Amino acid sequence: MSMILDGKKVAGEKKAIVAERVEKLAEKGIKPGLAFVAVGADEASLSYLRSQERACKKVGITPQTLRLAETITAEDLLNQLFKLNEADDVHGIIVTLPLPGQLNEERILSAIAPYKDVDCLSPANRGLLAFGQSEFQPATPAGILSLLEAYEITVSGKHVVVLGRGKAVGWPLAQMLLTKEKMGNATVTVCHSRSGDLTRYTRIADILVAAIGRPKFVNSDFIHKDQVLVDAGINGEETPEGWKMSGDIDFNEVSDKVKAITPVPGGVGPMTVAMLLNNVTEAAERRI
Amino acid sequence: MSMILDGKKVAGEKKAIVAERVEKLAEKGIKPGLAFVAVGADEASLSYLRSQERACKKVGITPQTLRLAETITAEDLLNQLFKLNEADDVHGIIVTLPLPGQLNEERILSAIAPYKDVDCLSPANRGLLAFGQSEFQPATPAGILSLLEAYEITVSGKHVVVLGRGKAVGWPLAQMLLTKEKMGNATVTVCHSRSGDLTRYTRIADILVAAIGRPKFVNSDFIHKDQVLVDAGINGEETPEGWKMSGDIDFNEVSDKVKAITPVPGGVGPMTVAMLLNNVTEAAERRI
Repeated sequence: MSMILDGKKVAGEKKAIVAERVEKLAEKGIKPGLAFVAVGADEASLSYLRSQERACKKVGITPQTLRLAETITAEDLLNQLFKLNEADDVHGIIVTLPLPGQLNEERILSAIAPYKDVDCLSPANRGLLAFGQSEFQPATPAGILSLLEAYEITVSGKHVVVLGRGKAVGWPLAQMLLTKEKMGNATVTVCHSRSGDLTRYTRIADILVAAIGRPKFVNSDFIHKDQVLVDAGINGEETPEGWKMSGDIDFNEVSDKVKAITPVPGGVGPMTVAMLLNNVTEAAERRI
Repeated sequence: MSMILDGKKVAGEKKAIVAERVEKLAEKGIKPGLAFVAVGADEASLSYLRSQERACKKVGITPQTLRLAETITAEDLLNQLFKLNEADDVHGIIVTLPLPGQLNEERILSAIAPYKDVDCLSPANRGLLAFGQSEFQPATPAGILSLLEAYEITVSGKHVVVLGRGKAVGWPLAQMLLTKEKMGNATVTVCHSRSGDLTRYTRIADILVAAIGRPKFVNSDFIHKDQVLVDAGINGEETPEGWKMSGDIDFNEVSDKVKAITPVPGGVGPMTVAMLLNNVTEAAERRI
């Protein structure tokens, strides 16, 4: 039987520490605030944002969600961001990706104030991330590394294969794994839609991370018994019992065939939220 | 016998095109200028800079080298950079790395104006590079991809193993290989000093790039006969006949055992210079 890496439990511990820090800030009259900027968000995104808002409130962070029309101009969106950059009660800003086609995504992300860039979205922070010097670490990759660390799974000198090169998970995780930080110094292979036969790479991984957004894509063909599997997928799936969340890994098929695995839900997802709350709290602490 | 990827020849062709473009700029009264900022440079670095200055002059670009004391303060260095950013006759700025310990390298590199950042050194341009959107592509990685392209060696879908994660070659090359650009879409593995047994990775590479700064490090144990080898090393080596330049690959040992290989000198080095001249010229053209 594989070890289940219990993100819900570890995240719970992290969130308890965050809640204490938020209390200490409250004694100084400071209430951390996090702004979500959602442009043309669909119902699934909004539902996800609502769950993040609830998580904020639980630890004493004030969330606000700016719902903006899909047809918004760059100028109007930049004006909204400048206001959030200036707002004293906003300590962190997250722009939901991807942005609609008429907007230059990189230009928009460049406008997030570096010290409010709690998900490491701006180009400058991304360029610094690779060398361990960004203002904050992006929530999902940081959550993955923190979960591994909690189970004393090191990455230094290991071969980590990352499926996916996206801006939110695959790419930044690869950067962090390559730094000289404590949870860095891994040998990293990044695979993606153009990699051809993925099993050529996944079968030789010490740690395999799936972040491709394809439900139950990773099956027995991809793995070996000494492997640690990390599932960063969040896919809505229609089942006979209604909508269900599933990861990029076929958990039922592989979960007893590897050394350790993160479940979905209850693995990377809660860790992402915990890291985000941690970053917002840190942003507020730095402002003192 | 392996195919020798003749960087000197390909770079010569590129430089001829650059020289024509510089002539056209001259007709409009514009002379491209490139500034090198060398802090506490040793004789080897200065010799390398002099060879780059000569290459500039040959195509009609005006080089200038700011030799600054190793003990310079961040404030003084930033002031120098601001002057170069403002100078109308300077179209490109290159800061020689690494900087001395008292300086925060990332803070200094952040001060290079984006449109003069012809070697893609600033954090923001580095963050954009990974998604194919930096102002310019860094000279050495661009030179490597351009040389492969000249010999119709594609990287899409190939497994490229990069030895080295440095800011000048290994890291930015990995980023470019992962973009969705024409010379991108590769599956990329980055190895480094903490990777343990490197041959575990190098032996399964379709294309192997050495950028670790260790003379003749890559030998027969690392390679296989269908491989393309790229040597980005520039190491000074003392031989019975005096100082000689050698790469990171033991050329004599492996050159007849692989499909293709870049020599040192005459491989990646000249391509780097050609790409730099190209970028400076482009910076001047964009200013029209």
